[in-house]
Amino acid sequence: MDITRIEAAARRLQGHARRTPLLGAPALDEIAGRRLLVKPECLQRTGSFKFRGGWSAVSALPEDIRARGVIAFSSGNHAQGVALAAREHGVPAVIIMPSDAPSLKIGNTRALGAEVVLYERGREAREEIGQRLSQERGLTLIKPYDEPEVIAGQGTCGLEIAEQAAQMGIAKAEVLVCCGGGGLTAGIALALEARAPGMTIHPAEPEGYDDTARSLACGERQRNASESGGLCDAILTPTPGELTFPITSRLCGPGVVVSDDDVLRAMALAFRHLKVVAEPGGAVALAGALFHGDELDGDTVIATISGGNVDEAVFMRALATLAS
Amino acid sequence: MDITRIEAAARRLQGHARRTPLLGAPALDEIAGRRLLVKPECLQRTGSFKFRGGWSAVSALPEDIRARGVIAFSSGNHAQGVALAAREHGVPAVIIMPSDAPSLKIGNTRALGAEVVLYERGREAREEIGQRLSQERGLTLIKPYDEPEVIAGQGTCGLEIAEQAAQMGIAKAEVLVCCGGGGLTAGIALALEARAPGMTIHPAEPEGYDDTARSLACGERQRNASESGGLCDAILTPTPGELTFPITSRLCGPGVVVSDDDVLRAMALAFRHLKVVAEPGGAVALAGALFHGDELDGDTVIATISGGNVDEAVFMRALATLAS
Repeated sequence: MDITRIEAAARRLQGHARRTPLLGAPALDEIAGRRLLVKPECLQRTGSFKFRGGWSAVSALPEDIRARGVIAFSSGNHAQGVALAAREHGVPAVIIMPSDAPSLKIGNTRALGAEVVLYERGREAREEIGQRLSQERGLTLIKPYDEPEVIAGQGTCGLEIAEQAAQMGIAKAEVLVCCGGGGLTAGIALALEARAPGMTIHPAEPEGYDDTARSLACGERQRNASESGGLCDAILTPTPGELTFPITSRLCGPGVVVSDDDVLRAMALAFRHLKVVAEPGGAVALAGALFHGDELDGDTVIATISGGNVDEAVFMRALATLAS
Repeated sequence: MDITRIEAAARRLQGHARRTPLLGAPALDEIAGRRLLVKPECLQRTGSFKFRGGWSAVSALPEDIRARGVIAFSSGNHAQGVALAAREHGVPAVIIMPSDAPSLKIGNTRALGAEVVLYERGREAREEIGQRLSQERGLTLIKPYDEPEVIAGQGTCGLEIAEQAAQMGIAKAEVLVCCGGGGLTAGIALALEARAPGMTIHPAEPEGYDDTARSLACGERQRNASESGGLCDAILTPTPGELTFPITSRLCGPGVVVSDDDVLRAMALAFRHLKVVAEPGGAVALAGALFHGDELDGDTVIATISGGNVDEAVFMRALATLAS
């Protein structure tokens, strides 16, 4: 994996993915205690950065392989990213989801033209269903982060950060990235290594799901005690990726770990001062930049908002923090 | 007023105002019954398009005049736009607000470095206070819409729409613009006349405050029965502007008028599908595009979201419409 692969992905994404802006607000600078810039991938198509990786992977397939279709396991943002990328390539997408996934997410994925196959958690192994469908129909599996073309696609977000920061005269910064399996973190780290070597990347995670922070600290991949149930559902993964961890461990500084309360307050401040909608998992990096400044150096911090697919009840919980 | 003035404003705004993206979502296309693109000026600095006009006007002043400072009457978005533009030019700004303005707005304007002068509605004429202060200190009044450099600044939003639509291969579209005094509408209309003549502009207004729609229909400036109290406070003005109306009446198609319920539902759909925060007045054009499609022609509609400065209580009212 290197920058040439990310540059190739950027060429394939041109005219399909959005170039998200780099936002900021004086009131947030004041809370952060330094200049704070935000890369709002919630404004990306399908509402998260996952469209970049989905498009990159689908567009990289040889045409005859792609024509048979793609398959993904996901109940969330990766599902929507792959579904839209497949639809716009004119090829079928099968998304395997647990039968207890929120009906809104199932509906959204179907609305993007994907065939949703439900499995019962505990009773059936989703990998077996996936393997059977792949073999029967010749579908290609698009993994959510342990896949080079997906990492390259997420890295295009890093290319944009480097260009946009350079236009503002910024060469040095701490860059906080919302981190689950590490696809976005690894992609951005590779892009910035080549294009903005004065920047230091820190993965940001919620408390209780800080596998990457702990893995970086000890040098070996650690697991989370729990795999689900947290507020930040979009970025909960059991352990750092096989492909992503060697990249993040080579290129990243220490991880930043934030509380659920930090996350809700960051969502509310993004509403008030940036006018964007962040989902909980998408707000962990902003929460780190706003409330964990003592763990950072330098006078500029850049935080990703990785997604905005949040239901209104959770968003109202976040807004309620503004009253207190 | 013509395109050269808007182009000059665009050069002055370069590197200071944000180039907002052009967003869209398949689910919104479906509701609108055609392709729907959204220009989210809520992502502009200070949370509304008003920063464009404020910057344009302040930057156009001769240096010695500007150094003495600027003054504006506003309790809302224009105040913040002028305040930030003045601060970044290193000159003083005085903002005259009613003493019953929400403390959040007073606080926001002060946080941007402006001196806020409060007057009592009914007891004092704000114009007299303004005139006295202007004379004593040599301040230049920046009007919110009846000022050529302000209209030129708002017109830069139209230049961006023309460029971004052209990149997507779109030459023909109906363009809905949130309309109060008509500064944004006139500016965009002038820009598109020169750069995208296949587009038709329609001002969008809330019911009960449809002075521009009625004025366009009869060819003469009409007044609203009420000047305040509506949900869409940011865009309530007594009558179309003296400078703006000749432009809008020459260049615009019929106005689109929407209900408060339309507005709240549009805010909720912008939350769900675009991940941006629209204030009520900022959502009237989107509401028109989504729910008044039978008044429009063609297969593409472009709607501005003019601002996102909404408090959480009103936003929660909008989100509540998603449950029903």
